[in-house]
This record gives sequence, C-alpha cells and structure tokens, in this order.
Amino acid sequence: MAMFAPPVQELIDEFSKLPGIGRKTAQRLVFHLLKVDNRTARQLAEAIVTMRDRVRFCPQCFNFASESLCEYCRDARRDPAVVCVVEEAPDIVSVEKTGEFNGRYHVLGGAISPIDGVGPDDLHLKELLDRIPVDGIQEVIVATNASVEGEATAVYLENLIRPRGVRVTRPARGIPVGSDLEYVDGSTLAEALAGRREM
Amino acid sequence: MAMFAPPVQELIDEFSKLPGIGRKTAQRLVFHLLKVDNRTARQLAEAIVTMRDRVRFCPQCFNFASESLCEYCRDARRDPAVVCVVEEAPDIVSVEKTGEFNGRYHVLGGAISPIDGVGPDDLHLKELLDRIPVDGIQEVIVATNASVEGEATAVYLENLIRPRGVRVTRPARGIPVGSDLEYVDGSTLAEALAGRREM
Repeated sequence: MAMFAPPVQELIDEFSKLPGIGRKTAQRLVFHLLKVDNRTARQLAEAIVTMRDRVRFCPQCFNFASESLCEYCRDARRDPAVVCVVEEAPDIVSVEKTGEFNGRYHVLGGAISPIDGVGPDDLHLKELLDRIPVDGIQEVIVATNASVEGEATAVYLENLIRPRGVRVTRPARGIPVGSDLEYVDGSTLAEALAGRREM
Repeated sequence: MAMFAPPVQELIDEFSKLPGIGRKTAQRLVFHLLKVDNRTARQLAEAIVTMRDRVRFCPQCFNFASESLCEYCRDARRDPAVVCVVEEAPDIVSVEKTGEFNGRYHVLGGAISPIDGVGPDDLHLKELLDRIPVDGIQEVIVATNASVEGEATAVYLENLIRPRGVRVTRPARGIPVGSDLEYVDGSTLAEALAGRREM
C-alpha cells in the first residue's frame, strides 16, 4: 500500500478533519510543517493547546473569553442597555471593526435552521431573555446574517422580545458602499429603495 | 481595537502562516477547534509534535522517514538498480499508487527554477550521483513534473547522468486515460502523436 510514514499520515488525517481542508491541502500543510524549522512547527501545536486550555465561552454572552467574562461583558464603559445579537462569536469582530457600536453582545451559537436540525432550543435564547431584566436591556439589535436562516431567526427573536417592551432593530439592508448599481441584485435594490432616506 | 481573545488571535496568526491559509480560513479553523471536543483539538496538536519528533528525511533518498532509512530504501525486495527521481516526497505516493514500480526513489527537493533562485546546487543531485556506483544504478526514471521547471531539471539530469553510462528515461507524455480528444490541449496531443505506439 502506498503510504506516508505513519506520523506523517496521522497528521494528514488530523488536518483533514478540519473544515474546508481536503486530503491534498492536508498533505501540503504537513509537508510545509516538515520543512519549516522546528520552532515554527511547535508554535502551532502550542497555540492549539493554549487556546483550548485558556479559552472558554463567556457565561453571559457566549463570546470567546480568556477570563471569567469576555472583554465586552467586563468593559464597564460599554452600555449594557443595548445588546447586539449575532449568530457566531467571530461576527462580533466584524461589528467591532465598524467602531460604531458601544453596547454589549449576545452570541446565539447559530441560527434557526430546521433543515440542519437547529431549533430555537439549540440557541442561547433563554440566556438572552434572562439578561433583559438583569441588564436593563432597552434595545436588541438583531445582527444575524442576511440569509434565510438569519432572517427566520430575526423574526423569531422579534416575536419573543418585543412583547417584553424592548426595542428590536435590525441593521439596514441596502446597496453596499462602493458598489455599482448595475451589479446590485434585485432584492437588495428593492430593499434599498424601500428603505430610502432624506438626503 | 477589534480583537479576539489573545489565545484565539495567536492561533489565528499561527494558522495564517501555513501555505494557502488566509486570515478568514484561519478564523474558521480556530472557531472549529473551539467547538469540537477537547480530545479532537489536542490530537491535532499532538500529531504535529509527534511528526516533528519522529520524522526525518531519509539520508539516502530524502523521502520522509520515521526510521533511520525510509521504507523504500529499507525494503530489500525493491530493485536498487532502478531509481525514480521525483521533485518532492509526496510525489512518491503518486508513483506508488500505480503499483507499477518496484525500484527505489530519489527526492530532489524541488526543481531548477532560476526565477525562484533555485539552482542545481540547491537540489540533492550530488547525492544521486553518489548512489550510481554504490547502488549499481542502471536506470534513472526522471519523474519530475511536466512543468517548465520539471522539464529543465529533467534535461539537466539527463546531461549529468547519461555520460556515466546509465539509462535515463522519462514517463511518457500523452492523452490522460478517460479524457475526450476534444478537450486535450494541443501540445499534449502533439506529444501523444509523436509518441504513438503499435496496437
């Protein structure tokens, strides 16, 4: 049987388990790690172990946290009354990069998707509802993805939260900055027109 | 500054150093490793360390080896008089998969490419020449890639080896099995015609 040396094959197998990494890519990665100096290769292994040892999910918002609460939940300068709800923790970084948001976050851990077997009970919804009275939340910005699942989740959340007297908003849909009208798809343009604003 | 928790960011940085892994892919990998169970994540780290600890290059043919010589150089049933020369160690697996080769191998460690600053001295050529008298090599099959660099390397090798009275061959070029004549590129078809054989 044509095979690599066992430790090489084992690492190829491990890399192949990662999302988006096929057998050929895994081979290339392993081959790279064989060629680089010892320290560089070990740094990757150590970073994996360190991350698993030190990173937990924030018990309040389910963002990544290397301390008991995540950096946003710990930050007293951030407004606890406005909460931005996202599907996954990396989405927080996208919102933060805008520099336009100074509230807190809540990570749902996904979106409602019956096809994937993800229902409302699989998301951190109860924990969000619990935060409303505790943190005195006045507005929930539902920044789930603009996909079918994200929209469904947004509607579900709205029905859940609005009756509690909390403002529920959703980031505007419209034409992306810098894009040509010619290449904007019909439904985006329709939403952009419907949501037009005074100049 | 919008940032992930430091251990997360460090692992993203480490993954980003790998070839073909950009920042977004690195994020997705790290996010995956945060979600899987602890054992799965650690297995990857351990496989990296084990591979670096146990895998060396074979001092004879420069294939990966987890023992003093690689599995092909150790295998007494393989014919030491026929050597297949490849650019990189993973190429050996491709040749082995054919089940048609029972000789030994020699890994050059690349191909001659002046543009990338790779000259003949950067390849394991001297070691190949040394093997000719020692192993009694009678044929060298030059299985470098069918790229410009691979071809140049093949020609260079031929000029080096043939004067020593060793047969130098190159795998046939031609129409890949299963392909439509319509889609075969011109130069491949030209080589296939030139190399036509009696039926």
